[in-house]
Amino acid sequence: MTVTSLIPEIRQYLERLFPLNRSLTGEANRQTLSILRELIPLSVHEVPSGTPVYDWIVPDEWAIRGAWISDSHGRRLIDWAESNLHVASYSIPVNETMDWSALEPRLQVHPELPDAIPYRTLYYNRDWSFCVTRGQYETIRVADGPFEVVIDSELKPGSMTLGEFVLQGRSSEEILISCYICHPSMANDSLSGVILAAFLARELSRRGDLKYTYRFVFVPETIGAIAYCAFHESEIKKVDIGLVITTVGGPGLFGYKKSFDPTHPINRLVEETFHDAGVGHITYPFDIHGSDERQYSSQGFRVNTITICKDRYYEYPEYHSSLDNLDFVKADAITASLDLYLRLIDKLENRVIYRNRIPCCEVMLSRHDLYPARGGAQRPELGGRSELDLILWLLFLSDGRRSIDDVAHELNVGAKSLRPIADKLLKKGVLELV
Amino acid sequence: MTVTSLIPEIRQYLERLFPLNRSLTGEANRQTLSILRELIPLSVHEVPSGTPVYDWIVPDEWAIRGAWISDSHGRRLIDWAESNLHVASYSIPVNETMDWSALEPRLQVHPELPDAIPYRTLYYNRDWSFCVTRGQYETIRVADGPFEVVIDSELKPGSMTLGEFVLQGRSSEEILISCYICHPSMANDSLSGVILAAFLARELSRRGDLKYTYRFVFVPETIGAIAYCAFHESEIKKVDIGLVITTVGGPGLFGYKKSFDPTHPINRLVEETFHDAGVGHITYPFDIHGSDERQYSSQGFRVNTITICKDRYYEYPEYHSSLDNLDFVKADAITASLDLYLRLIDKLENRVIYRNRIPCCEVMLSRHDLYPARGGAQRPELGGRSELDLILWLLFLSDGRRSIDDVAHELNVGAKSLRPIADKLLKKGVLELV
Amino acid sequence: MTVTSLIPEIRQYLERLFPLNRSLTGEANRQTLSILRELIPLSVHEVPSGTPVYDWIVPDEWAIRGAWISDSHGRRLIDWAESNLHVASYSIPVNETMDWSALEPRLQVHPELPDAIPYRTLYYNRDWSFCVTRGQYETIRVADGPFEVVIDSELKPGSMTLGEFVLQGRSSEEILISCYICHPSMANDSLSGVILAAFLARELSRRGDLKYTYRFVFVPETIGAIAYCAFHESEIKKVDIGLVITTVGGPGLFGYKKSFDPTHPINRLVEETFHDAGVGHITYPFDIHGSDERQYSSQGFRVNTITICKDRYYEYPEYHSSLDNLDFVKADAITASLDLYLRLIDKLENRVIYRNRIPCCEVMLSRHDLYPARGGAQRPELGGRSELDLILWLLFLSDGRRSIDDVAHELNVGAKSLRPIADKLLKKGVLELV
Repeated sequence: MTVTSLIPEIRQYLERLFPLNRSLTGEANRQTLSILRELIPLSVHEVPSGTPVYDWIVPDEWAIRGAWISDSHGRRLIDWAESNLHVASYSIPVNETMDWSALEPRLQVHPELPDAIPYRTLYYNRDWSFCVTRGQYETIRVADGPFEVVIDSELKPGSMTLGEFVLQGRSSEEILISCYICHPSMANDSLSGVILAAFLARELSRRGDLKYTYRFVFVPETIGAIAYCAFHESEIKKVDIGLVITTVGGPGLFGYKKSFDPTHPINRLVEETFHDAGVGHITYPFDIHGSDERQYSSQGFRVNTITICKDRYYEYPEYHSSLDNLDFVKADAITASLDLYLRLIDKLENRVIYRNRIPCCEVMLSRHDLYPARGGAQRPELGGRSELDLILWLLFLSDGRRSIDDVAHELNVGAKSLRPIADKLLKKGVLELV
Repeated sequence: MTVTSLIPEIRQYLERLFPLNRSLTGEANRQTLSILRELIPLSVHEVPSGTPVYDWIVPDEWAIRGAWISDSHGRRLIDWAESNLHVASYSIPVNETMDWSALEPRLQVHPELPDAIPYRTLYYNRDWSFCVTRGQYETIRVADGPFEVVIDSELKPGSMTLGEFVLQGRSSEEILISCYICHPSMANDSLSGVILAAFLARELSRRGDLKYTYRFVFVPETIGAIAYCAFHESEIKKVDIGLVITTVGGPGLFGYKKSFDPTHPINRLVEETFHDAGVGHITYPFDIHGSDERQYSSQGFRVNTITICKDRYYEYPEYHSSLDNLDFVKADAITASLDLYLRLIDKLENRVIYRNRIPCCEVMLSRHDLYPARGGAQRPELGGRSELDLILWLLFLSDGRRSIDDVAHELNVGAKSLRPIADKLLKKGVLELV
Repeated sequence: MTVTSLIPEIRQYLERLFPLNRSLTGEANRQTLSILRELIPLSVHEVPSGTPVYDWIVPDEWAIRGAWISDSHGRRLIDWAESNLHVASYSIPVNETMDWSALEPRLQVHPELPDAIPYRTLYYNRDWSFCVTRGQYETIRVADGPFEVVIDSELKPGSMTLGEFVLQGRSSEEILISCYICHPSMANDSLSGVILAAFLARELSRRGDLKYTYRFVFVPETIGAIAYCAFHESEIKKVDIGLVITTVGGPGLFGYKKSFDPTHPINRLVEETFHDAGVGHITYPFDIHGSDERQYSSQGFRVNTITICKDRYYEYPEYHSSLDNLDFVKADAITASLDLYLRLIDKLENRVIYRNRIPCCEVMLSRHDLYPARGGAQRPELGGRSELDLILWLLFLSDGRRSIDDVAHELNVGAKSLRPIADKLLKKGVLELV
């Protein structure tokens, strides 16, 4: 299978999932997870409103059925039915008649893009606003008031929905893979990552026989990840490596954000992934802003979490606007990102730690039939070293602490050429896997 | 208050304390401490002669009432009443008549400065000598002998006098501040440091509400500091940072001598102090020679001890001579040095260690009313960062081990701009002081 | 004694030991150790064939009484009596008549040196071959077959012979010195090292009063060293420093192979040895190939093992051929190498660790009569420092962990100039040996 064969299927999911009006909570989130269950057997958890999770409290559940602004002639100037983004997420119910001067402060336009509806949220504010294009703003301004302003929303105790899929590997050591399901009709920010994560999970499931256990987390950003951490504190505390998948479907450049410890091997693995794939990329240092790596990297967990992205959040002009749509995001871009994540996971899976089972003195190579046929001949595919040389170094350095990548790095040899040799030593029983 | 307002008062103390004939022991030392008690409530301890302190023994007490060299006509060619330095400190009593050839080896002149009387000591030697200018030496040489040579001194069991002032702070962690009171009529070497230390102690007392506890030590150099360590071994063993104050009143350049561990934060703090004050300076590496940092840095204590100075000991030509006098040392120079020490102590006092009380996941800033009014705006006074940014980094990095200076250093932001933000987080209860 | 006086004696042993047909096992090995017992009281251990040692098994004992290739006229074309090297070591018995096509694959020639008989071994292969010069090969090729081919050898249970000499020093800390006795008539590879090790052992015995205990090991390479490790596992695990002595008698350049940890002090000591002796040299990094440092450096032991050599194995054209003979190796070259090993051991012996017995505050130098006569005068022989200065630094840095070499390195002073000062401090009781 090559990932490009997935493009039509990914395109289909993009189109089905894009219109849903996701938020921190609500039916659209449940629907989103339900659709993803076609791909992977997600388990879904509902966390009741009011549940305290560390410094936070799970908010009330939000629903919206309709919203509009009409002029004094009853003409709808703005109708939420035309765009989820017209009403700021978590807006409280409104049913008022007001003139321009009262309405105007409630209208939000994009500061730079006149044709875009900005994406705004009011999660913990008990407030409301409409988001409109510059043109719509002008239309309302010159229309006849007073205006009928209606938001038919509801904010009441309910629950927040978390999705989880743990793909058991041979080892109980886990890789955390997280994406966020809380953005309505944002194609690059959030949705592209959600789709990539789901397809990544399906691909890894199909492969089976994985070394690591992969914990896929589909949750609302921030509060959802926080709740997830609170309910899986002991598991997350044990995790060493995390991937936060987001903004992977834009037309622009690839990039990756480093984990908080720039010397952690995961950063080297990402760089090797780009290098091996021949893909240029922007490198972003770790930053305290960003997505849910904020939670996973916090003092209590300190998971080294990276993000590979394509048109990273904050950086593309269409970010958090109605222009972050299906004109901007394409299935082939997501697929290209998926390919990189798969390559990275290949590298992780290939990251094995061996221990020499005969630590005292040398292994008697002939006894184990380990004298290479071509003996000491230097081979270009082994970085100009001989197979015998690499066998001896592997036995010398495989002390149960160094991964084979570390050994390769130390020997300045590609890990790929070292791996089959180590496998042979493993089969012969002179190395063992830790 | 600006320190410059202290200049007249400092000048007065310089003039009152300069003439006293201090030595390792004796009445002039007691008088010196007694005068300093006008500034700070020094407690004074007498250590009896013969007391063993580590590898040393407290010497007999020395007193001198007069001393002279007269020619055969009874004319006084040298009279101790004219300069304390004419008799080497701890000279034993003498009352002899001798000719030039016997007297000459007893005359010490300065090797480089013909007009200076050198300062010499004979502490543990049971010997005597006169110190004279080159001109006086010539006068005696051509005068008529035999000479009457009298040193009316006394060397007998008594005690060594130590002064101490412990200024209690909120924390029991101590900063050691030490100066030496054993030099007679040396203005820069010893006296300038004694006066600075006393005024520094008074300034800190007046401020009150100090974080650290400050242990001021006024003792004879070497034997006094050694005795002080012996009697306060457990306290000094716990000290991390020390300041030895000396030679702070010359007309020349500022300098500082590093502590034995050049990576210790105190060295960075001193450099920041000079930088912030815009004061150029010479940097001296740690050296095994010097003053009482020799005791405090020894293996038993390993206190990282620095010295800020102005015309450092060894380096100015007038060092250890009668030219190290009130023409050389001025109150305004001492005041300028005092200003640097106060700035350094400000830095030390501002060196606080916070711990995030919500280590797992992010703090919910809105719940604690911590979203900055100007949100994410980049502010030049915050090093081009936003307040929000610094809040998040502080929470991320304040792990109970890094001081806020370390955090500032890591973020490349001035600690001054970080401090009020940390204080706000402290008040809100999300950070705590360690 | 200068080592050059040893040249005639070393030459004698070279000539006596060179002809013996050493191998992994056998009478020639016993004879070799027996001759070395004239120099040092070696204890000799026999390890029975079949004994398992770690991953290895001690092989059967090999003996050879004669071997030849005769043409159809009964003319001996090759006769083992003329060179030990004519038969590959551990060749099984043969008594066959064969024609050229069957014989030819059994003939080994040197790939580069037409006039040399190559040295080949078949230790664990149960096979046989003849080694011949290119000229001999041609002679056989054009001679009349069929050929009578005889190897009158024997391979049967017996034992492997190990020699050991432990020279007890004041400390139980051991230096491991190892050489290999398994090469027949190879003058530089193996024999030069065996002779050097024996003379080194005798020289150290004669000196007596050594600080370290020296464990000299005379064993077959690889299997012998492995067996020795297996029977002395706990001792070898405690060893920090090892010397593997081999190829020390060539006409070419000196070199040394670093230990696996290039920051280990032994490497600095070797470099200082070359420097002090004014001897240029090649530096070889640690490599997993080589001699018995492979065993001693293995994970179970991690002894930092170096080799000083002169015409190192692998590098000289005559290596593993009949040209590695007494024309190539001379007693004076071995003696020059011995001189370097003795210098290195001097450095090791002089590597002492002091501890200041007065860790709190300064030592009162005058009380211990330690004020140097020439006081603070800078002395070129002390690296431009004064004796006083070095006394103070020694007291400051001698903390029971740093060796005096470390102190010298830190002070950038020659250890030789520091040693007498430290001795003085030791005599006075202010330093003690750890």
